[in-house]
Amino acid sequence: MAEPLRIALAGLGTVGAGVIRLLETNAALIARRAGRRIEIVAVSARERGKDRGVDIARYAWDDDMTAMAARADVDVVVELVGGSDGPALTLARNAIRSGKALVTANKAMIAHHGVELAEAAEAAGIALKFEAAVAGGIPVIKGLREGAAANAILRVYGILNGTCNYILSTMEDTGRDFAGVLAEAQAKGFAEADPAFDIDGVDTAHKLAILASIAFGSRIDFAPIAPVGIRRVLAADIAQADSLGYRIRLLGMAETETMPENKGGDGRCRLFQRVHPHLVPLDHPLANVDGATNAVVAEGNFSGRLLFQGAGAGDGPTASAVVADLIDIARDMARANGNGGKVGAPFSIPVAELEAMPPAEAGNRVGRAYIRFVVADRPGVLAEITAAMRDAGVSIESLIQKGRPSSGADAGSNDPVLVALVTHDGPEACITEALRLLDGSTSLAEPPLVMHILGE
Amino acid sequence: MAEPLRIALAGLGTVGAGVIRLLETNAALIARRAGRRIEIVAVSARERGKDRGVDIARYAWDDDMTAMAARADVDVVVELVGGSDGPALTLARNAIRSGKALVTANKAMIAHHGVELAEAAEAAGIALKFEAAVAGGIPVIKGLREGAAANAILRVYGILNGTCNYILSTMEDTGRDFAGVLAEAQAKGFAEADPAFDIDGVDTAHKLAILASIAFGSRIDFAPIAPVGIRRVLAADIAQADSLGYRIRLLGMAETETMPENKGGDGRCRLFQRVHPHLVPLDHPLANVDGATNAVVAEGNFSGRLLFQGAGAGDGPTASAVVADLIDIARDMARANGNGGKVGAPFSIPVAELEAMPPAEAGNRVGRAYIRFVVADRPGVLAEITAAMRDAGVSIESLIQKGRPSSGADAGSNDPVLVALVTHDGPEACITEALRLLDGSTSLAEPPLVMHILGE
Repeated sequence: MAEPLRIALAGLGTVGAGVIRLLETNAALIARRAGRRIEIVAVSARERGKDRGVDIARYAWDDDMTAMAARADVDVVVELVGGSDGPALTLARNAIRSGKALVTANKAMIAHHGVELAEAAEAAGIALKFEAAVAGGIPVIKGLREGAAANAILRVYGILNGTCNYILSTMEDTGRDFAGVLAEAQAKGFAEADPAFDIDGVDTAHKLAILASIAFGSRIDFAPIAPVGIRRVLAADIAQADSLGYRIRLLGMAETETMPENKGGDGRCRLFQRVHPHLVPLDHPLANVDGATNAVVAEGNFSGRLLFQGAGAGDGPTASAVVADLIDIARDMARANGNGGKVGAPFSIPVAELEAMPPAEAGNRVGRAYIRFVVADRPGVLAEITAAMRDAGVSIESLIQKGRPSSGADAGSNDPVLVALVTHDGPEACITEALRLLDGSTSLAEPPLVMHILGE
Repeated sequence: MAEPLRIALAGLGTVGAGVIRLLETNAALIARRAGRRIEIVAVSARERGKDRGVDIARYAWDDDMTAMAARADVDVVVELVGGSDGPALTLARNAIRSGKALVTANKAMIAHHGVELAEAAEAAGIALKFEAAVAGGIPVIKGLREGAAANAILRVYGILNGTCNYILSTMEDTGRDFAGVLAEAQAKGFAEADPAFDIDGVDTAHKLAILASIAFGSRIDFAPIAPVGIRRVLAADIAQADSLGYRIRLLGMAETETMPENKGGDGRCRLFQRVHPHLVPLDHPLANVDGATNAVVAEGNFSGRLLFQGAGAGDGPTASAVVADLIDIARDMARANGNGGKVGAPFSIPVAELEAMPPAEAGNRVGRAYIRFVVADRPGVLAEITAAMRDAGVSIESLIQKGRPSSGADAGSNDPVLVALVTHDGPEACITEALRLLDGSTSLAEPPLVMHILGE
């Protein structure tokens, strides 16, 4: 058997400990599949003494994790520190500069600095791999970059955050409201003490930006995403959606659009990226994705709709993706007789050929939407809302008014009332205009919530 | 850009024409992703003049497809002829012997001769790839061989035949019986004129044998599978399953088992492979896979349950998988500067290391089952059945007796009656024994139908 692949592991949280456990448990099988053993040489983390359930005494310890990249006895640096900048980024840059392959699970770092890192990796002729950065244990980066490589991707979208999906599907099952379910999820360890990154959609946006780049050959463009999370979704919205034949899921979605010049556009290919709760039809596979599961759909012009589903987080699944990257590198070394592992362009095509696509305007998009208002219970409110819709050119498919279920047992008659409507297919700009007309209306107790309906 | 990858294409049926269409439509994008153009150099098929909706005049024509392997201007032979033996096999052997990489969609050939071909390909140092042989456009070979490579696979199973799934889900939707739905599927072109390969489970067994080899590192062993197809599934079974909370799906399933010596076994790792209609719980993702869609589940010891879903057949999806293999080879050539494309062991580990696993006995398995009897409507039949179950040690969870819906409007009282029962968890050997006790009973109008219930 060939020389082992020697790795330095930075970051020993649950994922880091999972990688150690996996490499130990499945060592023989991995060596058979990779054509060589994969050996941890050195480890590093903030705290050396902490009990992690794995024995790290057998590995060299580096106090300065960013210096591990310089070790002569290491082929690959595995970065599991996290954070878009700071030590993770320093380590990543050092690793590439030292000619080491880099494997990372760090979605924030790739979303912010992936283009720079990929450029450096390509110039150095070494591998940069990040399967674990998107959708945990699901091999969706590989699925898009290689499995669907023959296709023009028409659209890529999915459930990319397990915490949000757990909360939404628990709200569905129990009829409880967001805050209570979140608190319980935090108590059970399914949500972070500071859950903002997850529930406000930032984590989903990081992953979406990475997927979009690979799917469309565009330079990663995280900044314009402006994610909308799930904080404002009410139990009543979920019940309403259910009665209409939908489930609510936080989706990240990306596609490209080109507005021809004869339609007022500039003929350039633009990138549309959105993170937003959506209404998903019950017969769509994503409607049946429950709990912390993740799922990604890629629509290819020849493959049709491909679905990849599995555990989106957790030490085991994430470690599975990290080690899959290591096995790819080990196999590739076996073939190329190289020593940095040359596994091709990180974003499928070389960075120099990635297109800088300007963001697409949401307003050009045509689709159906669910719009929910919380309104004062008084005459004329419905007329005000429907007039605004008419004046903005929004065609209403159905409208339901319901008293808002109060949390108290005997709610007074002054409780605000929910008005939910579903629009016909139409340009999103019309909805924006309708909401502008209603802006400042004293009839509305809070800003309306718009959720797009996932279309074919 | 590097030299193009030059291919010879044998077989110009719907898939072959699809590959030509794909390579033409997505040429620029494929060149960007593969790092080189992929060019068809020569084509061959049984009939030259046939209209295929694509222009083949620009490619060299070889009357003798098996001779295409000898062309000096070709890097890869793409075999889309079909059939486990005959010209397809001759071409495959010739290609490898001539040092050409081989890409094929031929599940029957790989199931029967995959070990021989992989051995030859490994010895020649060339690529043998067959993503399109299993589950059409879904990159499940790659998903198992690479995406899940870090895991010991505990079980792999799935819906691998679109025709069967189309028939079962149409029976579900319409309440109609098998024969009528099959006839309609044939009329619509969703089922072959001779549908035996599909509906008797042979096609599923071919695919399962390939998946099992990659999942478990075992030598392909198609012979012992003895598939059971869907011919005997009644509309009444589907209705019964539905009322119990299940859908009926034809599954291919494989796992390994080791019977320890202290339990009467020989301590050897054995391969269990089964193709059989199963009852799938409604909350399992496979229960919601409808129409001609395929889906494969792989359970890894770290990844947990991974699901890959998409179009299992059709020219576009199958061409997508064929060309994904070509792109892998093209990328690999770019890196290795080789010229046959060296993309590693076809079955994930080298053939010499694949284990020859003896088949496992189904009887050792423990699970729940649905057993349906068609019985004469007379006193004592239920007692006879339940006594046999008791004597064989089969514990009954529920039992339902229903008059069999006759096809005539006014059915006489002599119509046979359906008795369906669901067992508790127990060894399959007990069910076999119970059915042996009932064998030859004049109370049974036809042999009982056993369908296993998909367990966790």
